[in-house]
Amino acid sequence: MYFQAIKTEGLAQITYILGSEGEALVVDPRRDADVYLDVLRRQGLRLRYVLQTHRQEDFVEGTSALARIAGAQVVAGRHPITGHADVRMGERERLHLGALTLVALHTPGHTPESMSWAVYLDPHHAQAWGVFTGDALFAGETGRTDLAAPERVYENAALLFDSLHQKVLPLGDQTLVFPAHGAGSVCGSGIADRELTTLGFERLHNPVFTSSRSDFIQRKVQERLHRPSYFSRMEEANIRGGVPLSADSSATPFLEPKRFQWASHSGLVLDAREPESFAGGHIPGSLNVWMQGLSVFGGQMVQPGTPLFLVLPAHADSKEAVLALARVGLDQVEGILTGGFGAWRNEGLPIESSGTLTPEALFSQMEGFQVLDVRERSEFERGHIRSARHAYVTELEECLSELGLREDHPVAVVCSTGHRSGLATSILLRNGFQLVSNVLGGMSAWRRLELPVRTGSPSEVEFEQATRSMGTEEQDASPPSPS
Amino acid sequence: MYFQAIKTEGLAQITYILGSEGEALVVDPRRDADVYLDVLRRQGLRLRYVLQTHRQEDFVEGTSALARIAGAQVVAGRHPITGHADVRMGERERLHLGALTLVALHTPGHTPESMSWAVYLDPHHAQAWGVFTGDALFAGETGRTDLAAPERVYENAALLFDSLHQKVLPLGDQTLVFPAHGAGSVCGSGIADRELTTLGFERLHNPVFTSSRSDFIQRKVQERLHRPSYFSRMEEANIRGGVPLSADSSATPFLEPKRFQWASHSGLVLDAREPESFAGGHIPGSLNVWMQGLSVFGGQMVQPGTPLFLVLPAHADSKEAVLALARVGLDQVEGILTGGFGAWRNEGLPIESSGTLTPEALFSQMEGFQVLDVRERSEFERGHIRSARHAYVTELEECLSELGLREDHPVAVVCSTGHRSGLATSILLRNGFQLVSNVLGGMSAWRRLELPVRTGSPSEVEFEQATRSMGTEEQDASPPSPS
Amino acid sequence: MYFQAIKTEGLAQITYILGSEGEALVVDPRRDADVYLDVLRRQGLRLRYVLQTHRQEDFVEGTSALARIAGAQVVAGRHPITGHADVRMGERERLHLGALTLVALHTPGHTPESMSWAVYLDPHHAQAWGVFTGDALFAGETGRTDLAAPERVYENAALLFDSLHQKVLPLGDQTLVFPAHGAGSVCGSGIADRELTTLGFERLHNPVFTSSRSDFIQRKVQERLHRPSYFSRMEEANIRGGVPLSADSSATPFLEPKRFQWASHSGLVLDAREPESFAGGHIPGSLNVWMQGLSVFGGQMVQPGTPLFLVLPAHADSKEAVLALARVGLDQVEGILTGGFGAWRNEGLPIESSGTLTPEALFSQMEGFQVLDVRERSEFERGHIRSARHAYVTELEECLSELGLREDHPVAVVCSTGHRSGLATSILLRNGFQLVSNVLGGMSAWRRLELPVRTGSPSEVEFEQATRSMGTEEQDASPPSPS
Amino acid sequence: MYFQAIKTEGLAQITYILGSEGEALVVDPRRDADVYLDVLRRQGLRLRYVLQTHRQEDFVEGTSALARIAGAQVVAGRHPITGHADVRMGERERLHLGALTLVALHTPGHTPESMSWAVYLDPHHAQAWGVFTGDALFAGETGRTDLAAPERVYENAALLFDSLHQKVLPLGDQTLVFPAHGAGSVCGSGIADRELTTLGFERLHNPVFTSSRSDFIQRKVQERLHRPSYFSRMEEANIRGGVPLSADSSATPFLEPKRFQWASHSGLVLDAREPESFAGGHIPGSLNVWMQGLSVFGGQMVQPGTPLFLVLPAHADSKEAVLALARVGLDQVEGILTGGFGAWRNEGLPIESSGTLTPEALFSQMEGFQVLDVRERSEFERGHIRSARHAYVTELEECLSELGLREDHPVAVVCSTGHRSGLATSILLRNGFQLVSNVLGGMSAWRRLELPVRTGSPSEVEFEQATRSMGTEEQDASPPSPS
Repeated sequence: MYFQAIKTEGLAQITYILGSEGEALVVDPRRDADVYLDVLRRQGLRLRYVLQTHRQEDFVEGTSALARIAGAQVVAGRHPITGHADVRMGERERLHLGALTLVALHTPGHTPESMSWAVYLDPHHAQAWGVFTGDALFAGETGRTDLAAPERVYENAALLFDSLHQKVLPLGDQTLVFPAHGAGSVCGSGIADRELTTLGFERLHNPVFTSSRSDFIQRKVQERLHRPSYFSRMEEANIRGGVPLSADSSATPFLEPKRFQWASHSGLVLDAREPESFAGGHIPGSLNVWMQGLSVFGGQMVQPGTPLFLVLPAHADSKEAVLALARVGLDQVEGILTGGFGAWRNEGLPIESSGTLTPEALFSQMEGFQVLDVRERSEFERGHIRSARHAYVTELEECLSELGLREDHPVAVVCSTGHRSGLATSILLRNGFQLVSNVLGGMSAWRRLELPVRTGSPSEVEFEQATRSMGTEEQDASPPSPS
Repeated sequence: MYFQAIKTEGLAQITYILGSEGEALVVDPRRDADVYLDVLRRQGLRLRYVLQTHRQEDFVEGTSALARIAGAQVVAGRHPITGHADVRMGERERLHLGALTLVALHTPGHTPESMSWAVYLDPHHAQAWGVFTGDALFAGETGRTDLAAPERVYENAALLFDSLHQKVLPLGDQTLVFPAHGAGSVCGSGIADRELTTLGFERLHNPVFTSSRSDFIQRKVQERLHRPSYFSRMEEANIRGGVPLSADSSATPFLEPKRFQWASHSGLVLDAREPESFAGGHIPGSLNVWMQGLSVFGGQMVQPGTPLFLVLPAHADSKEAVLALARVGLDQVEGILTGGFGAWRNEGLPIESSGTLTPEALFSQMEGFQVLDVRERSEFERGHIRSARHAYVTELEECLSELGLREDHPVAVVCSTGHRSGLATSILLRNGFQLVSNVLGGMSAWRRLELPVRTGSPSEVEFEQATRSMGTEEQDASPPSPS
Repeated sequence: MYFQAIKTEGLAQITYILGSEGEALVVDPRRDADVYLDVLRRQGLRLRYVLQTHRQEDFVEGTSALARIAGAQVVAGRHPITGHADVRMGERERLHLGALTLVALHTPGHTPESMSWAVYLDPHHAQAWGVFTGDALFAGETGRTDLAAPERVYENAALLFDSLHQKVLPLGDQTLVFPAHGAGSVCGSGIADRELTTLGFERLHNPVFTSSRSDFIQRKVQERLHRPSYFSRMEEANIRGGVPLSADSSATPFLEPKRFQWASHSGLVLDAREPESFAGGHIPGSLNVWMQGLSVFGGQMVQPGTPLFLVLPAHADSKEAVLALARVGLDQVEGILTGGFGAWRNEGLPIESSGTLTPEALFSQMEGFQVLDVRERSEFERGHIRSARHAYVTELEECLSELGLREDHPVAVVCSTGHRSGLATSILLRNGFQLVSNVLGGMSAWRRLELPVRTGSPSEVEFEQATRSMGTEEQDASPPSPS
Repeated sequence: MYFQAIKTEGLAQITYILGSEGEALVVDPRRDADVYLDVLRRQGLRLRYVLQTHRQEDFVEGTSALARIAGAQVVAGRHPITGHADVRMGERERLHLGALTLVALHTPGHTPESMSWAVYLDPHHAQAWGVFTGDALFAGETGRTDLAAPERVYENAALLFDSLHQKVLPLGDQTLVFPAHGAGSVCGSGIADRELTTLGFERLHNPVFTSSRSDFIQRKVQERLHRPSYFSRMEEANIRGGVPLSADSSATPFLEPKRFQWASHSGLVLDAREPESFAGGHIPGSLNVWMQGLSVFGGQMVQPGTPLFLVLPAHADSKEAVLALARVGLDQVEGILTGGFGAWRNEGLPIESSGTLTPEALFSQMEGFQVLDVRERSEFERGHIRSARHAYVTELEECLSELGLREDHPVAVVCSTGHRSGLATSILLRNGFQLVSNVLGGMSAWRRLELPVRTGSPSEVEFEQATRSMGTEEQDASPPSPS
């Protein structure tokens, strides 16, 4: 028996490879499938099936492409909205792989077609060894119920509760749970960071099993999660089983500074360096999206079709950067800056810089700054700087006019550590702001320094007043919460 | 939370790295600890503890060395025979690591000092997330009870049964089980090849939980496992927490053929190529131990202190080969043949070759061969070629005179696939046999070809008669069992 | 300034990268151009030109493909048979690259369109720094003059002599010489193994400069070189600037033994292991072409279009093996055996083995063997075993009937070290010979052991007689020549 | 024959490996010799000799260590100040290596004991193939004559001229020249960037051959080169044949931010990120030395024995960074910041930032800045910003008080591109300056933008006046020189 989980950083996505007696299946592959093929070859396994739990929303699948390359069959459920599949399996139908048996379980709720696949080691499939749960069940969390049909969150939540209680939980406490995402995914707000889990452990700790049906539904209905705009494009691609990689990353041209400058006029420059590097100097007009954020924030900030030009931390990052974008369907990287920002700098080409601030520095001169918090609303509500305005980073550009920020006055941008605020900094610069500073370390550092925070929703904050009186009201600020 | 299992091929040994909030512990490290240090660095984790489940017998530990390099503490139980430890923990004492808690459980039986360590994610340690069981509990198997005190197998088995039932099983079905070895280890005969398991799954499938106490003890008492001779050396080294690597493998000199020839006169040549390559041509007097077998069979065949000289499949294998030997305390590799066997061949230096046979060829001319089966006795008893004599490969040299083989008549050596028979071939050649052939594919291929096998112990076989009448008695041979 | 020579092992082919002030050119690229692109990126160089010295015969060029990927121009001479070029340069025309200047020199003789390109560092191009000579001038040798028009060797040799004396030599002794091939290439019989050379050094040591015109021509006319059959296919491809790689090697499927067996019935199995490994056991019907020989001997032995299936020394060799074949236009690798020969062996699938012999063993039982020498005729003539028949390995199959070998009598096959004799062994086995042994170490080992050799052409040897009287005539054999 | 040049970036140092018939020699190895050992192994070469041209000043040799590890002999000349050598060779004595012959030539001038080694391919050593010239002859330059005895520059220059004219030049135009350093080395001011050269080419282009004896001596006497302070330490180590690497880089502990902060109080933090990253945010008190500058500027800025703590661009840079420091004898790296600056930032630990300026920005507000140029004096004299003060970066700290800079007024620091000015920025910050900005792109960008420069020595500049009148005098500034 062979088993391996392969994570995709940035997306917090997990693909599984299961093998037995020379045969293998892969569950929910991403587009760049070389890593799977390499494992199969090293283990001497022949890929027979590519198994789908559901149509993914947050990345482009490699389902069809992998199946075609490896001569395998795509296996999915029977729900009508399921895309292409070579084998469609009905409830409790069995799939054999070497000495293993998988049993199909329809577990709708996150999406209507969601399947879970129980794995049995014995031919009698008396007791499950594990279960692939897709986005139905995560560690400590369940899948979102607002995606497929936002107006039907209530029904979806009920469906999910029933699916998990009636089909998955009965597999038994001993069953290993293999979800499609780990902590950090945009597909669930509270995914626990435990690397492995079991049904027994989830039964004791997962809200879907520790809450009553009505409480669970209530919780899901109240859940307010950001829906990244690129999800609909992903779904569209995945209805066809995803899209093969158009070309390998080695074909992306490296452009010397002047050609990069010339070519990038027709597109968008993404600068994937760390936020303090971006602040120290960057190409005017570039967007600062750090390496690990390229998939999720690239997916949200970039219009499909916009030619992309990359400034990277190091030459060695080029393959990963191009793939991170391709995983969310952004195939249009048309150039990478040869020699990185250093080469641009040495050519005497135009450079823009922005400010950085430490939390202490901001705190000690609070009246000098308009503070902008660009974290998710739920993070903001759990604790923010008193005078902070709020706009989620990916929505900043469209709601900029409503925020009432003055372009010619200093703005301090804050998130949890500095990455999203780096992106927001670059958005503000592109929109004409001149004095933008990124608060390095963000609210994470702010709290460690035990500086005052307040809780509550943005609407309760009276910005103007807060700004005016900031100097005198610190003493009544809510005490810092432990990090 | 960070969790990773790192396997050592050949030894089927598993080390675990567990991390939380910037802190980490490593459970049962091997000697060459670079891989652990590299993980810790990439994950940004500081090693606080090196946790011991028990004193290992089958490899040299890196416990002390890793702790020293990383500034960590060695944590073990309180049993008097436990070697050096910075922290000794009594029953149910708690160790904190970031947000995690570990609880010490004394689980003797395999060895008197064996500890299991339950892991809790919650501060209340209400329900265990996982448990490090060392060699007490494997997937589908339990540790040997004949090692520590062979004459007390009965008591040890009882102790092991009680340890697992009273301390481990109560942790609950949801608990992930992390044993120190996987399938293929010499530390247990029937370790299942499932890559992950849970207490619930073991409760349903592991003999220690599915049998009665007396049946379990009976089974352990009857277990006849080979005890590799190098185990005692390992124990001796591990009482001190193992031995640091003396030098890195890059210091092993590569010797061109003539210098290799000259230098190796004072030692032993190990040829780590595949058995058919060895048969096609090799250095006279060399021992054929394939790459994956270097740790276990090198450990058994080589006297400590004997200078070793290696012939390797490829230049790229040199680091792994030197480490595989070092893991069982064989640090005395004094030379690697530059350019491999091809360079030796092209120099016109002395070459010896031996024969290869396919199962069909052997079957069709059975009367022409003395057949020697070098698998473990239990494998032999489950089915062998009718006329085969038996000697376990590592005991072959010492029992050679008793086998009654004629040096000047052809010998066909068989194991399961060809590796151990390759080693046995080289042993026979070193002992003056002139016509030795390795049966490629071994009993594994023999069975697939549905050639006749018989079962039973070697003592029941009357070799001479079998050999004489082989041609006529095939019809009553036991039917081939499915592989 | 940046300069790098990149060699392709097996073909002994050399591509050059020259860079200055951010611009680069590549001279005579092979098909798999990733290595060049990677250098360009790391050095921050933009490829402006792909320079051709001539249409290559021994490998498929990557000229057009590289130019297209990198947005560069193909630069060549003006001779009408030159294939596609974006820039055609006449005699002494100049090409500028950063601070460098190249000057075009038409140097026919090897082929009619051959160009050399002198490199000047100074703007006045007073004294050449180096010259790319293609196949016109090698270290210690000149290009063959029998390829373009075998019937015009005399004219070609004269043309080559004049080209080199009138155009290249005047560049001056200080000039570095950069030829398209190094020692071991099939494009020249006596290429010296010096890694670097200068015109001054060649003037003192190269026959084209140390001989008179008539002596040089005489020597070229008498040169009898094997013309590999695949050369004409290469030329055909290269008239179009070569052929892009059809797909990357990662798409070649790995097949488990039974599927490999089934699939390979429709094609040819190439076994790239060392000859003694092949002898120890191999797939019946497979051809033994060692890794380094895949390009040249694969190119000669394999009919284009024949589906190929590979047995490789190690998993890690797969990329290189597929590329080595692709470099000579063999793109039809349809499968690689997963797990290598060991996996085949363990499945109990059909295995064939052959014999190996040491030179001493052959010498001591010479009367028992038909000896076949498969080296080039010129190697044979410089010294062979007295009773040896001769056939060049790539011509063996077609002239087999004329050799008068008996299929049911033992054959000992010999080359210089064992690789070509390994290939010949596999050819004999495919043609029904049953008792074939490869002489390990070949004539190279034979000579080191100071065994007797004789010189002269095959026609002078009376095989039957030689075989009969071998035992008594050793004393008059020619003394061994030093290796 | 095998030949390879291995460059050490940063030091622009070149080691050569020469091999013939299984034997090899290495010329002038650096301390970290793994790369040489690896080449020798892959090529199947046995190291017989480690050849010394002279006692190196700019890095710690690996001469003795390599010889010991590989069982080779150290070969040097006979001059009394030569350090340890196993074989001492007098004038024109011959050393044999496989089929090659080397001839010893004493070529003093750079240092008294400098040797050159001519290489002959033929046994008659009629015409040299190449010559290892050490620091006597470079491409386009000769070694410094001010190091061994600064007061005897005249005599040394005469000696060098005579050595090269009488011993090296007669080897002939065809001879390849293999010097110990390439462009960028601190061992010669005008080393040309041609990657390969010949005696014939040097005869035509190198001042030592194109000038008269008296002109050459005059030129050397006037040469004013910075003598890095660490040279004397290197010489001291190299008299013993260098120092073996004390431990491999994998032993350097990675420290998480808080432990890094605590530990680094006792030492010096080197931040090896690019200058704009450093400007965006860095650890207070850290010194900014970019990766490629670690050897040369680390060697000059760091007192031996000062414990070092590194902040690196990426995890992957750790090995190279530790080695770069070790190559100049700085073995005391005691910690590397785990997770890099991002981890520090996210912990809320103290951060300092500094400014960046583009050349245009500086030019448009020149009156607001005190400009400090930290290039070498010769660079400054060839063209600088009118109002710039000058201090070479490594001497900045000691001459700071003489520069008359005000700590509380803005300082703009400029070098050629931004690296040395980054280092100078960090020095100023450590010395209490509060408003320091690095001019990104430096004079290189300044010139490309065609901003005004003036030439001449610092003493001619009247700073105060220049600063006052900067706005009005641009018109008479010297015209921009082409880059």
